[in-house]
Amino acid sequence: MNTNRPLILISNDDGFFSKGLSELIKFLRPIGELVVVSPDSARSGYSSAMTTNIPIHYQLVNREVGVTIYKCSGTPTDCIKLAMHTILDRKPDLVIGGINHGDNSAVNVHYSGTMGVVIEGALKGIPSIGYSITTHDLNVEFGACGPYIQQITRMVLEKGLPALTCLNVNFPTTPSFKGIRICEQSKGQWVNEWETITRKGGSTHYWLTGNFEDSEPNNERSDHWALANGYVAITPVTVDVTAYSLIDELKTWFK
Amino acid sequence: MNTNRPLILISNDDGFFSKGLSELIKFLRPIGELVVVSPDSARSGYSSAMTTNIPIHYQLVNREVGVTIYKCSGTPTDCIKLAMHTILDRKPDLVIGGINHGDNSAVNVHYSGTMGVVIEGALKGIPSIGYSITTHDLNVEFGACGPYIQQITRMVLEKGLPALTCLNVNFPTTPSFKGIRICEQSKGQWVNEWETITRKGGSTHYWLTGNFEDSEPNNERSDHWALANGYVAITPVTVDVTAYSLIDELKTWFK
Repeated sequence: MNTNRPLILISNDDGFFSKGLSELIKFLRPIGELVVVSPDSARSGYSSAMTTNIPIHYQLVNREVGVTIYKCSGTPTDCIKLAMHTILDRKPDLVIGGINHGDNSAVNVHYSGTMGVVIEGALKGIPSIGYSITTHDLNVEFGACGPYIQQITRMVLEKGLPALTCLNVNFPTTPSFKGIRICEQSKGQWVNEWETITRKGGSTHYWLTGNFEDSEPNNERSDHWALANGYVAITPVTVDVTAYSLIDELKTWFK
Repeated sequence: MNTNRPLILISNDDGFFSKGLSELIKFLRPIGELVVVSPDSARSGYSSAMTTNIPIHYQLVNREVGVTIYKCSGTPTDCIKLAMHTILDRKPDLVIGGINHGDNSAVNVHYSGTMGVVIEGALKGIPSIGYSITTHDLNVEFGACGPYIQQITRMVLEKGLPALTCLNVNFPTTPSFKGIRICEQSKGQWVNEWETITRKGGSTHYWLTGNFEDSEPNNERSDHWALANGYVAITPVTVDVTAYSLIDELKTWFK
C-alpha cells in the first residue's frame, strides 16, 4: 500500500457490485489509495445497524494498483468497524459512502445505510462524506457527479471537518447541475408508507413504500429544495444529537 | 379502545417477550391505553433500520383491558410505521421504547433499535421517550425505575416536547438512584470491537464486542458520567441532525 497518498476507506449500502460504487472508485482513484469494504448483498435502509448476534466475515474481491475491494457479510456500519480493526494498517484519512442509488436528503439521513457508513466514520474521528443521487435507476449516468465529487473530496482532505461532523452530499437527476448549495436537513415526513399485499390464503402482508411530504417546500435553505431546483446539496451533519436547546427547560421540569 | 385516556404506542428492540417490555407495560398501565407492537425476535443494534426488500406482517399476541400486544416480523422502526398506518385508529399521544436491556447513552443512541423506535416517533411528530437500563442482565430488577418512568412519562404527556426532539432516558444499575440529571451525549468511542473466531477449517470470523472509551470521563454534564455516578440520565435528542454551526464555513469553501 502506498503510504504517501491519502488512504480512503469506502463502503456503501447497495453492495460491492453496484454501479454507484464502481463510479465512485473511478472518480476517487486519482485522489488516493482506495480500500473498499462493502456489503455482499444490498443493505438499503440499514441505518447504523450493526450485527450483534452472529459473527461476520469478509473476502477479497479484487486487488489492483491503488484499489483493493473486499465484500463483507455485515452491515454498512460493520464494514467500517471491521475495516478499521482488521483490514487497514493505518487510520484512513477519509471515510466515504456511496454513490448511493437513492436520495438521502431530509429525514432519509436517519434510515440510510450509506449515511450509516459516514456516521460511523465520524464517530471514529475521521472526516467522512456520503454521496447519493436522487434516483433508484440502477443504470443512471453518474458522469456529471464526477467533478463535484473530486472537488468536495479534495476540499475535505485539505481542510478537514470539525469533530463529530460529516457531510451528506446529494445530487439531483437533472442532466447538468446548477452548482453547490450548503443546506439544512428538510423538515417533513414520509406518508402512505405501506402497500398491502393479500395472499391467496387471505393473510395480509405489508411492503414498505411511501412519499416524502415536505412541510416547508419553499424553504430555500433546505436540501430537498436544492435538489428539486437542480443544485448539488451539501448538508453538514452532526453525530452529537444532543438537543442542547432543551436542556435548560428540562432542568425546570425535574428540579 | 378507551379514547378518553392517552394512547401510548410502545415498542422495543429486545422483542415482545422481554422482561424490560413487560415491566414497562406494568409501569405505564395506570397512565394510558397501551398498544404494543414489538419485534417477534431480538433486534438489538438495529438503529433506524427499515425492511425494504420483503413484506412484513404482524399478529395479535394478547388483548386485555387497557393493553393490546402485537408481535411484528419487522424492525423496531417498522413496528412504529406499521402501527401508525394499520393498527392504531388515531395518532398516539406518546411513543415509548424500552425498557431496553443495555445502555443507550453516549454514541449508543446511533446504534440502538430502542432509540430507533423513539426517533421514528419524533419524526412522526409525536412526543417520544426511550427507557434503557445499563445492564444486559435479562433478569435485572426494574422496581426502582418504575416511579421515574411514571414521573417522566406524565411530565411529557403534560408538557409535550418541541418538534423534532425526543428523550433518551438511561437508568444506572445501582440498587437506588440519586435522582435525575439532564445530560448531554457523552463524547467517546467504542474500541476493541471484534472478537476473532477461527473455525476448524481455518476460516476467520469476527463477532462484535468492545468497550466504550469515554474521552471526557470528568464531564459532569455527560450522560455517561451521570450513570457512572448513580443518577438517572435524561439526554434530550434532536432528529434534525444538521450541523448548523458548519454552514457558514462550508459556504466559504464553495463560493
